[in-house]
Order: sequence, then structure tokens, then C-alpha cells
Amino acid sequence: MVFTKTLYIETEHTGEIIDLTHKIESVVQESKIKNGIVHVFAPHATAVFALTELESNLREDIKKLLDDITPVEGWKHGGNAYSHLRSMLLAPDKTLPIRNGRVIRGTWQDLLFIEADISGRLRKIEVTVIGE
Amino acid sequence: MVFTKTLYIETEHTGEIIDLTHKIESVVQESKIKNGIVHVFAPHATAVFALTELESNLREDIKKLLDDITPVEGWKHGGNAYSHLRSMLLAPDKTLPIRNGRVIRGTWQDLLFIEADISGRLRKIEVTVIGE
Amino acid sequence: MVFTKTLYIETEHTGEIIDLTHKIESVVQESKIKNGIVHVFAPHATAVFALTELESNLREDIKKLLDDITPVEGWKHGGNAYSHLRSMLLAPDKTLPIRNGRVIRGTWQDLLFIEADISGRLRKIEVTVIGE
Repeated sequence: MVFTKTLYIETEHTGEIIDLTHKIESVVQESKIKNGIVHVFAPHATAVFALTELESNLREDIKKLLDDITPVEGWKHGGNAYSHLRSMLLAPDKTLPIRNGRVIRGTWQDLLFIEADISGRLRKIEVTVIGE
Repeated sequence: MVFTKTLYIETEHTGEIIDLTHKIESVVQESKIKNGIVHVFAPHATAVFALTELESNLREDIKKLLDDITPVEGWKHGGNAYSHLRSMLLAPDKTLPIRNGRVIRGTWQDLLFIEADISGRLRKIEVTVIGE
Repeated sequence: MVFTKTLYIETEHTGEIIDLTHKIESVVQESKIKNGIVHVFAPHATAVFALTELESNLREDIKKLLDDITPVEGWKHGGNAYSHLRSMLLAPDKTLPIRNGRVIRGTWQDLLFIEADISGRLRKIEVTVIGE
């Protein structure tokens, strides 16, 4: 059984982190699928999905990590090279298991969308639930 | 067809690497699924799955890489910030193909669980086999 | 429904980037699967899959990023330690959604195979299409 859904979110600035955990949990509930996986994908070359705690200090640490390993300046591709590199390194998707109709995740595993482009944009999220 | 199994492992210290290849191969065998995928997921925000060779020098190289890009000190979140960042960067899951009832992987692709938290813990692994 | 296909490519040198987007789109078309996911996996511990734009400046930026975070020299495992580390960090697989028989991806999301070993090699790619 396959259930699909397209979500839209609007980001306002680079580095913005949006918690999509509850939206994805709703899609899985709507799917009626009890056991399987859910794949969450952003069809954007400058977007990132992360699975971690959305806490204000850690939020700053995530920004620092990204700035350390993929600095904003110093690339040939120009303005949004760092955006592409962040999306490549951290990936624009996540896969989570489903058991008894619920998404399985750790207490501190929030499903976070990170805007890696140079400014906010309208973003599409393709959710695919597969199972039985 | 979907087959699920929960495994438990106990780690003893930060940075510990546990080879789960054979355990996952057993789950796939038990599932009787011949062609499809197996998704292996740790519901923990401070855990990592890696697919590489478990050789003693490379083991030290992995430790050095993690210490280089996500140093233990220097974060705002406190004690286990680096644990969260490592889990975010390397991801707490892996997906592998199944053909003729066997997990497909390269000769040097061992499925490794890396304990990224500050000390050892009891860890849960959710395995989902999907296919026919 | 599950459809599988094995592809082979030959790389000529380290760092070579091969765009596999159209080959994977053909496999999905051949599968007749309309909605689901496609998982693309290289059973090689020194290979990488990336999802980003194949533009000549960005190509150089990708090389610089890999050289910055996983330098060629300075590891214990020897000659191809950096190859293993790059494959571990960026991962040798990708999962993409399928809708109405087509692979969903962004305008600048090309599916790229990056040769991370020290020289060119014959490479196998296992494609698994799951859906209905």
C-alpha cells in the first residue's frame, strides 16, 4: 500500500528551522498504514532535512556547524554555492519507520526542515508512506 | 509485504562501533522477503549508522574525522551537543537493497552502529523489511 | 510491487562525477510503477551519491568541500582512507519519490555518482523501485 501527500511550507530567511514532526505524523495517520516507512523529500537543491532536538542552544550549534564546514563565502559557484553544498552534505530527505500506525522516533528526534538557500522561499515537501 | 523487528544493543562508551551486519542479515532471512529494501533506524538523537569497513586503522580515522568536523567542545547546547550534531550529520539510519533474499552490500561495506552519546547506553534498533 | 535493475558504469579517475538522472528515470519508466519510491545504491565502500546541480563551478566547489572536510592525506588506514570516509559521510545511496510514473526532483537536483576511490573502477548500481 502506498499513500502520498504534497505539503507546502513558506520559509522567511536562510537558516530558518521549521519543525515538521506533527505534520508528518498527521499524514501517516491519514494514510491508515500500520507498519512500514515514511519518506519525506524536498524537491529542492538548497534544502535540508535533519533529525534532532529543536532546542534554542542546539539551534545555534547547528548554525555554527554549517558555517564551519560549509562557509557562506569562498566558493566558485557564486551566491548560493553554500546552499547547494549543505543540501548535498546533509540531504533533502529522511526515512522513518512506522509501527502500529505511529511514526517511530526518539524523544529528541524532531523532524526539522532547514532553509539552506540565501533567503526564504515557498517549499514543497513530498511525503510517501509505504507499508500495510 | 512488510516485516518488522526490534533489536536491542548495549554500548559501553562514546565512540564505540558495533558491527550489526550479521544481525540485520538474519532479520532479512527471517522475513522471507526476496526482493526489496531493508531500513535500519535508531530512534535516538545521539546515534549514528555508517556503512564502511571495520578495520582498526580506519576505526581511528573515523574517530579523527568526527573529532575534526564535530569537536567535543565549543558548543552552546552543553555536554552532548557534539552527539546531536554527529547524529544529524551522519544520520541514524541506513537503507540497503535485498536481492534473492540477501542483503546487497560491498565487500568492505559493514553496517556499523556508532555510539555518539557521551557514554554507553541501551539502544533500540527498528528494522523494516519491505518487498516481495 | 517491486522492480529491480542492476546498472554498471565505468569511472576513469578519482573525483569523477557521473550524472545518472536519466538512467534512473528510464528504470522507473520501465518498472511501470506509478507511485512510490526509487532507491539507488552503490555496493561499494568508496562511492558516493549526491543530489545537486551539475554545473562546472559547483563541480569545483564539491571537490573543494570534500578536500576540506576529508583531506586526501593524514589518515592511518593508508591510500584510500579518504575514499572510505567520503562514502561514509555522504553515503552511497539516495531515495527519491515517484508520482504518476515520474521521479520527483527539483530543477537543480541531478542524481550524481561521485567516484571517491583513488582511481577509476567498474561500478555496480542496484536500483529498487517500490510502489504501485
